[in-house]
Amino acid sequence: MKVGYLGPESSFTHTATRTAFPEDTLVPFHSIPACIKAVEFNEVDLGVVPIENTLEGSVNTTVDYLFHQSSIPVGAEIVLPIFQQLMVSKENKENWKEIRRILSHPQALAQSQEFINCHFPDADLEQTPSTAYAASFVAEHPTQKIAAIAPKLSAEKYDLAIVQENIQDVAINRTRFWVIGSDQVELPHIPVERQKMTLAVTMPNNMPGALHKALSAFSWREIDLSKIESRPLKTTLGEYFFLIDLVADKSPELIQFALQEIQQMGGEVKVFGNYKVHPIHGI
Amino acid sequence: MKVGYLGPESSFTHTATRTAFPEDTLVPFHSIPACIKAVEFNEVDLGVVPIENTLEGSVNTTVDYLFHQSSIPVGAEIVLPIFQQLMVSKENKENWKEIRRILSHPQALAQSQEFINCHFPDADLEQTPSTAYAASFVAEHPTQKIAAIAPKLSAEKYDLAIVQENIQDVAINRTRFWVIGSDQVELPHIPVERQKMTLAVTMPNNMPGALHKALSAFSWREIDLSKIESRPLKTTLGEYFFLIDLVADKSPELIQFALQEIQQMGGEVKVFGNYKVHPIHGI
Repeated sequence: MKVGYLGPESSFTHTATRTAFPEDTLVPFHSIPACIKAVEFNEVDLGVVPIENTLEGSVNTTVDYLFHQSSIPVGAEIVLPIFQQLMVSKENKENWKEIRRILSHPQALAQSQEFINCHFPDADLEQTPSTAYAASFVAEHPTQKIAAIAPKLSAEKYDLAIVQENIQDVAINRTRFWVIGSDQVELPHIPVERQKMTLAVTMPNNMPGALHKALSAFSWREIDLSKIESRPLKTTLGEYFFLIDLVADKSPELIQFALQEIQQMGGEVKVFGNYKVHPIHGI
Repeated sequence: MKVGYLGPESSFTHTATRTAFPEDTLVPFHSIPACIKAVEFNEVDLGVVPIENTLEGSVNTTVDYLFHQSSIPVGAEIVLPIFQQLMVSKENKENWKEIRRILSHPQALAQSQEFINCHFPDADLEQTPSTAYAASFVAEHPTQKIAAIAPKLSAEKYDLAIVQENIQDVAINRTRFWVIGSDQVELPHIPVERQKMTLAVTMPNNMPGALHKALSAFSWREIDLSKIESRPLKTTLGEYFFLIDLVADKSPELIQFALQEIQQMGGEVKVFGNYKVHPIHGI
């Protein structure tokens, strides 16, 4: 099977895809829309794209594209813990405290802010297009007093020495990815945590308390929400759709009744998928 | 007055800050937390940081930092329309259709996907740390067959020729910025659209239908929400706070009653600010 993913190689999306599909052919794409389009046009069988808390692309790009421009189903979710490492060339391994310049993706720099302020308050920070690029640059300039902030995989790929581990400010940082292209994707290589359903609800414009009304349909049925977000519809400013994650471990009929009730109120419902969430451990 | 902003120079945040504070001293910072901390430590009087739909930093960084690590008030919001331009060196102005490589920030490339697919399906796309970097690279290599996607300001700064205007996929793309550091910031140089209030609501863990209950307090009082988003609390996975924007044109007492009601239910409320929204036109 051919599985597309948001590249480049050694990115977090690549790590997630490789772990979920160890025996398949993986194809990198340079952007989220390019990856989704490759699924639409059957250039690949499935695609893996980030949907939350990512360093590599906008969450909004994925959600908005799937909402506005495609009817590709979501078949599974992969959750990857993100750890950032400080790495230098092997020449600098002993005297890494002398580094003067730290390179990384802007968000990885932001996530490691406390570590940098504490250990390298005077270092120059240089933004790079990706963490992988920062690691490759350090590898190509082994005698310079520079370091990269990047995941473990990059240190392996570019033969760098990790001198401080897990320097991100928050102890555990997780990124979520969707596997798109089929409404049920089995991932036997990683464990299952729970069943989840994602839907977009659009309520009639100018309906007072519209969101409160829509949530009533779930609330009195005791269907739990695990996430909600309003997103602009883009057609007219001030109009929104609501992206809602439901806990879907039980009672699929009950959820169907709730969706029908929302439609009766004049709302529109688009189901992205009803899928299993797979957390990856220990990378 | 000294006003900090998320740099670098000629970024969208710089444009917004320059327009709102034409007579003040502007100080660039390399990250959102660095800019917020400068306000905390009184190195600058005010700070300007992106909070939505930005190319230059994570929205979540701003919101989470203000929620978890600071009590700095939000005093105003600036809304900037974002337009992307295709630009080349003046040497390539006539034969721009022959360009082979397009450079830009990953999200600007993603936003211009349809234009690129239609006009330059075979061009190599190269990711750069910022749109400004892409423009400067094109300026430094005037004879190469390359183009940058960047805002108008970059074309002026690096003396490039804009050969296709407003190439972003969505007709109007807006980015929002918060002015932080005072609970009331007057911006006489740009118009006022409306009054808005942003708050974070944390409901007791495991309260069934917690969000629905909290929204009841606004709904029956006919206080309109203009945005809602759940954000993980980070302390324990699965716990959330809700970031809510209220239309606050009228009835400040009514909103206070609603907040008190939520607190009576066991919820916690953190008010980020009650501030004016200022749209910038025609840049």
